[in-house]
Amino acid sequence: MVTVERNASSDRIERDIETLAGAEYTLSEEAIRRYAYTSVYRNTLDYFRRELETIGFEVGEDPVGTLVARNRPPGEPAFGIGSHCDSNRNGGKYDGTMGVVTALEVCRLNEELGLGLPLQLVSFLEEEGSGFGQMLLGSRIVAQRVTEEELRETFRAIDDGRSFWEHAEEAGYEPARWREAIHVLDGLTGWIEMHIEQARVLQDTGNRIGLVTAIAGYVHADVVVHGRGDHAGATPMDLRLDPTLPLAESIVELERLARAAGKGTVGTVGEIAVDPGIINAIAARVRFSLDIRGPDDEAFQGVARDVSAFAENAARTRGITAEYRERQTLPATPMDERILDALEAAAQATGEPYMRMHSGAAHDTMCVADRVPTAMVFVPCKDGISHHPDEDADPADAALAAEIILNAIQTLSRA
Amino acid sequence: MVTVERNASSDRIERDIETLAGAEYTLSEEAIRRYAYTSVYRNTLDYFRRELETIGFEVGEDPVGTLVARNRPPGEPAFGIGSHCDSNRNGGKYDGTMGVVTALEVCRLNEELGLGLPLQLVSFLEEEGSGFGQMLLGSRIVAQRVTEEELRETFRAIDDGRSFWEHAEEAGYEPARWREAIHVLDGLTGWIEMHIEQARVLQDTGNRIGLVTAIAGYVHADVVVHGRGDHAGATPMDLRLDPTLPLAESIVELERLARAAGKGTVGTVGEIAVDPGIINAIAARVRFSLDIRGPDDEAFQGVARDVSAFAENAARTRGITAEYRERQTLPATPMDERILDALEAAAQATGEPYMRMHSGAAHDTMCVADRVPTAMVFVPCKDGISHHPDEDADPADAALAAEIILNAIQTLSRA
Repeated sequence: MVTVERNASSDRIERDIETLAGAEYTLSEEAIRRYAYTSVYRNTLDYFRRELETIGFEVGEDPVGTLVARNRPPGEPAFGIGSHCDSNRNGGKYDGTMGVVTALEVCRLNEELGLGLPLQLVSFLEEEGSGFGQMLLGSRIVAQRVTEEELRETFRAIDDGRSFWEHAEEAGYEPARWREAIHVLDGLTGWIEMHIEQARVLQDTGNRIGLVTAIAGYVHADVVVHGRGDHAGATPMDLRLDPTLPLAESIVELERLARAAGKGTVGTVGEIAVDPGIINAIAARVRFSLDIRGPDDEAFQGVARDVSAFAENAARTRGITAEYRERQTLPATPMDERILDALEAAAQATGEPYMRMHSGAAHDTMCVADRVPTAMVFVPCKDGISHHPDEDADPADAALAAEIILNAIQTLSRA
Repeated sequence: MVTVERNASSDRIERDIETLAGAEYTLSEEAIRRYAYTSVYRNTLDYFRRELETIGFEVGEDPVGTLVARNRPPGEPAFGIGSHCDSNRNGGKYDGTMGVVTALEVCRLNEELGLGLPLQLVSFLEEEGSGFGQMLLGSRIVAQRVTEEELRETFRAIDDGRSFWEHAEEAGYEPARWREAIHVLDGLTGWIEMHIEQARVLQDTGNRIGLVTAIAGYVHADVVVHGRGDHAGATPMDLRLDPTLPLAESIVELERLARAAGKGTVGTVGEIAVDPGIINAIAARVRFSLDIRGPDDEAFQGVARDVSAFAENAARTRGITAEYRERQTLPATPMDERILDALEAAAQATGEPYMRMHSGAAHDTMCVADRVPTAMVFVPCKDGISHHPDEDADPADAALAAEIILNAIQTLSRA
C-alpha cells in the first residue's frame, strides 16, 4: 500500500471545494446552484480542465458535455473515477462535486507519487436534474438509456421550456452525435465513484468510509383512493366513505412491511394530496406517493406489491376503491466484488473505521455498471443533510477516500 | 291542524326558487354565486320585498342589510321564520334560499287561510362567508358576536380586500349603527329555520322531514408533527423520524374515538399538508386539521382532547413531537323542546315520514338561540350534495315543511 500525505490531500480537496463554492461557480448567493449549460457550470468544467491539464491529462468532453480526462491515449485501458459537478437548485458544496474533486486528488497523487496508473476521470453532465428535470441525464446518455425523441422534444429546460437539444446546441455541443457518448466508457477496466452518503448511517455508526455493495433499486408509484366528499359536520360516521382511512392504514402498513422485509428495504410516503383539502369537508379523493427501495429486488418489489394490495383491500373493506399507479421501477445495481475487496483491503490498511453498506440513493454509477465493473465509496455528511446549503462534509474524509481508492486501483492494476 | 293545498305550495316554492336561479340573481352562469352587496344579492332581497309587500308585510332591513319583514308593527310579539339567501361561491339553488322561500310560503299561507298569525320573516345577510370569508356574519352581527374593529378593519372582501365597513357604506347601509341590529330579534316569541340537510341521513333513512334537536358544536384545530426530513432512499427504517406515522395513527384513532363516543359525534381530517411533500423525501413536518363535532359537548370535546393526547403520545413514542393548536371551539346549541314538540305533532298529523336528528352543520339559528326559543326543520337534499351546482332538493318537501311549520306556530300561538 502507498502511504499518502493525507493532510496535504485534505488541504487541496478543501481548496478545490471552497473555490468551486465561489460566486463564479453558482447562480445563487444562498446556495450552490449550477446545472448544465449555465455559465457557472462552464466555469466549473473549465476549472477541472485546467487542474487536470496541469498534471498532464488530456481533457475532452463527450458530444453533450460530460467531461472526460485521461492520462493515456483514447482506447487504451484505464481505470475510471469521478462523479458529477452539477448541483441541486438549492444545493450544497459537496454533493457530486466532492466526488470529482476527490477523483482529481487521486489523479494528482498518482502523478506526485509517480505510480503511473492509467486513469480516466469523468464528470457526468446533469446528475441532479436541475436543468431539465431529468436525473442522471449525462450518464443515461452515456449508457444510451434515452431516446433521441426525448433529447429533441421531451426533455425541456425548467427555466424556459426549451428543449435539451436546443440548449445543448446553443452551448456549442453536438447533440445530434449523442450516440457517440457511449465511447466515454471505452477501455475502462473498472470504475469507482466517491460521493457523500446523503444519510446518517456513517455518522451514527462512527464510520469514516462506506464501501457500497449495491445501489438500491426502487419502485416509485402512487395510490389514489376514491372516496366520497361529504360535509364533515353533517355526515354521521356510518355514512362516510372517507379516503383518508385507507391512506392512514396504508402508511402504517408500509412501515410494517418494510421493516419485515429487512435486507435494507425502506418505504416512504412523501407526498399526500387531499381533494378538496378543507377542514370541514370529508375528502373526496386522496393521492399518496410510494417510494420503496432496497438493494434486494425481491424484497423491495415484494413490499410494493404487498402495500398496493393492502391499500386496495383497505379501500374495498370500506366500500370504496384504491388504484395503484406505477411511475417507475428500477432494479438494484450490485457492485463488483473484486473492486469491493480491493477497496476493503485498502481501507483496512489505513486503520480507519469503515463499513460495507448499500446506497439508498441513485448515482451515475448505476449507468456505468451496465458495461464496467464498478464500486462506490461513501464519506459521511453531517446529520445526513444533503441537497441543502447546510450540507457539510469533511475534506479529511475525502482525503482518506482518495488514499483508499488509489491503493485499490493499484492493487487491481497489478492483479 | 290546518290542511294545506300542498301542491299549490310546492308550485309556488318551485317558481320562487327557479326565478332566483335566473341570470339576474347570480354572478355565475354555472352556479349560484351571490353574496352581500352585489347587484344580484340586491335583486334577491328586492324579490322577497315585493313578494312580502304583496301579502301586506312591512319590509325593512337592519343597518347592514339583514332583511326583516313583519305583518305586525315593530315591537309587537311575532313568531320568527327564515334563513339566508346568499350562496356559496360555487353554490346551488337550495342552500339558504329554499329556507327563505319556505318562510315566505308560510307567510302566504297564513294570509291565504286567514290564520292571522303574527309573523316575522328574516333573511340573514352573508351566512356563507362568500363575500368576506366570515360565516354567519349577518346573524353574528344581530347577536352582537362581532367587534366594531372586526367590521371596520379585520373583515375584508375576498374580491378586493376592502373592509366590510367600506362595502356596507358603499351599498347605502349604515354600519356605524350595527349595534342596532340587535333589535332584529325584539318581540320574537320563537324561531324556526328550514334548511336543506346537506347530508344524506334523511335520504338514506327514507324520511322527508328532519326535526333538529340540536346544532352540533365543534372543535376546529390543527396538529403539527415535527419529524426530521431525510433522504427516502438512503435513510434506514431504524434511523427515521417520519411524521407521517403519527399522522396515520391519529387518523385511525380519530375514527375509533368518534365511533366510541357515539351521541352523533363525528371527527374528520380534511386537510393534510406534508413538508416538503416530494416523493423521495421523508417529510420534515406534517400538519393535519381536526374537525370534531357533535350535539353533545362533553362527547365531542372529549374526542378532541383524546385525539390530541393520542397524537402527542404517538409522536413521543417515535422520538418526535406533535403540537395541538386549537383554532376555535363552539359549544352545541340545543333546540327548544316546546317548539320541537309542536313541530313533531304537526309532522305526525301529515302522516309523512319524519325523524328527530341533530344538525352537524352550523346555521344562523345558532345566533338566534341566544335570545329566542328556536328549532330547525330539515328537508332532504339529493345524495347529500350541497355547496355545489348539483345541489338538488324537492319543492314538495319544502311545501310539507311549510305546512308543518305553519301548524306548529299556530299550536304555539294558541298555547
